Amino acid sequence: MLGRVAWFTRRRRGTEAPKLRSRSAEVSGRRVELDDLAPSAAEFLGRAAYLQLALFENLGRVIAAAPTADAKARLAQVAQAALAKHRGLVALIERQGIAAGTAMEPFTRGIDEFQRRTTGADWPQSLMTCYLTAGFLDDFLVRLAGGLSPEVSQRALDVLDTDEQLDVIAELLEAQIAANPRTSSRLALWGRRLVGDTMLVARESLTSSLDRGRDEERIEPVFTELIAAHSRRMDRLGLTA
Amino acid sequence: MLGRVAWFTRRRRGTEAPKLRSRSAEVSGRRVELDDLAPSAAEFLGRAAYLQLALFENLGRVIAAAPTADAKARLAQVAQAALAKHRGLVALIERQGIAAGTAMEPFTRGIDEFQRRTTGADWPQSLMTCYLTAGFLDDFLVRLAGGLSPEVSQRALDVLDTDEQLDVIAELLEAQIAANPRTSSRLALWGRRLVGDTMLVARESLTSSLDRGRDEERIEPVFTELIAAHSRRMDRLGLTA
Repeated sequence: MLGRVAWFTRRRRGTEAPKLRSRSAEVSGRRVELDDLAPSAAEFLGRAAYLQLALFENLGRVIAAAPTADAKARLAQVAQAALAKHRGLVALIERQGIAAGTAMEPFTRGIDEFQRRTTGADWPQSLMTCYLTAGFLDDFLVRLAGGLSPEVSQRALDVLDTDEQLDVIAELLEAQIAANPRTSSRLALWGRRLVGDTMLVARESLTSSLDRGRDEERIEPVFTELIAAHSRRMDRLGLTA
Repeated sequence: MLGRVAWFTRRRRGTEAPKLRSRSAEVSGRRVELDDLAPSAAEFLGRAAYLQLALFENLGRVIAAAPTADAKARLAQVAQAALAKHRGLVALIERQGIAAGTAMEPFTRGIDEFQRRTTGADWPQSLMTCYLTAGFLDDFLVRLAGGLSPEVSQRALDVLDTDEQLDVIAELLEAQIAANPRTSSRLALWGRRLVGDTMLVARESLTSSLDRGRDEERIEPVFTELIAAHSRRMDRLGLTA
């Protein structure tokens, strides 16, 4: 993976103009690629709202299990950002005259299973989950939102394309690793497993009418980029993706 | 308790003008009584911020355990309100040049123990905890905030004296009880235990220099009123306080 990532980063440099709206220059530059693979607005919003709720629930767990008041307070700030995304998506669902519960219910089973698989065995692993799955899925949802109708797309981006404050989690993880360097290899392993599960739940969000072959070819570079961003998150912690 | 409540409600009627700022007419009318029993601003804010965080954590747990996407979405709204209180108090702490973790740390032990004792054995019990402890403690903190210096007091009230959306939880509890009326007596029992634990954690928030006797006499009517509000929350669910 790292080989493709490096190649990709090289290729992009100098070939793309900076964009005004961006979570990160790396990701937004190629946002258009998933456009016509997006599902209907109701499906997108229902799934995205439930995903954000799951990410928020994970943060709730790491706040409850945090060892100090300081860590709790910092993570509460991240939870506030995640919750704002969920609530913002719920507002968009209700704007369409649909109850939030109704819109989200079809996606609970798959996402609950994803959440169960990615819970983590202890506090550092659960922190990694919050850091990596939110990073990957927020990148992914921002790209997918580009394929909705212009009005819904813009509103969804206003909600999703905001700072999810992952730096706060990265700092807590860095402190954990510095205090106990032997956790590194275990966290690196966990990070690799997380990216697999996260890619699967992201793939499920694409329209179900994918054409194997043509569409696969278009999806691959997008996921390569999302994985590149994932690798940078791992790099930051000194972990090999 | 119910006898004192009725007496108190009777006496207050017609003797007090309505106040502009109020969580409820019943509670705010006598807010001044705890004024000089309030601790220092740093102590008040640190404890209140950690209490709000604990209440938020409880909401996180009931969201994660909620049986439907609809219940989760509704509770997420309540969590947003609770988190806003915590974050607002943290902002006030930082405004005083103190780190939030430092301000909260002295109170973690007592509040963690309170949280442990009030977790609840299942989802309906945990919902009751969110409903009753947040209701009681928000009422209490609003009164106690009146005893801070005017500037801090006003800012703290701006944060705390807002709708904590307990109606949402009450509706979910009503649905639980309607679907399974036999849970009533168990929840009533749990509610009675909760008010005891909640009163204890509230008492700990008063200045430590209490004069037994004189101060006790002044505290009692305040708690009588807080218990009256608690009884109304129980009444609403058809449960005896």
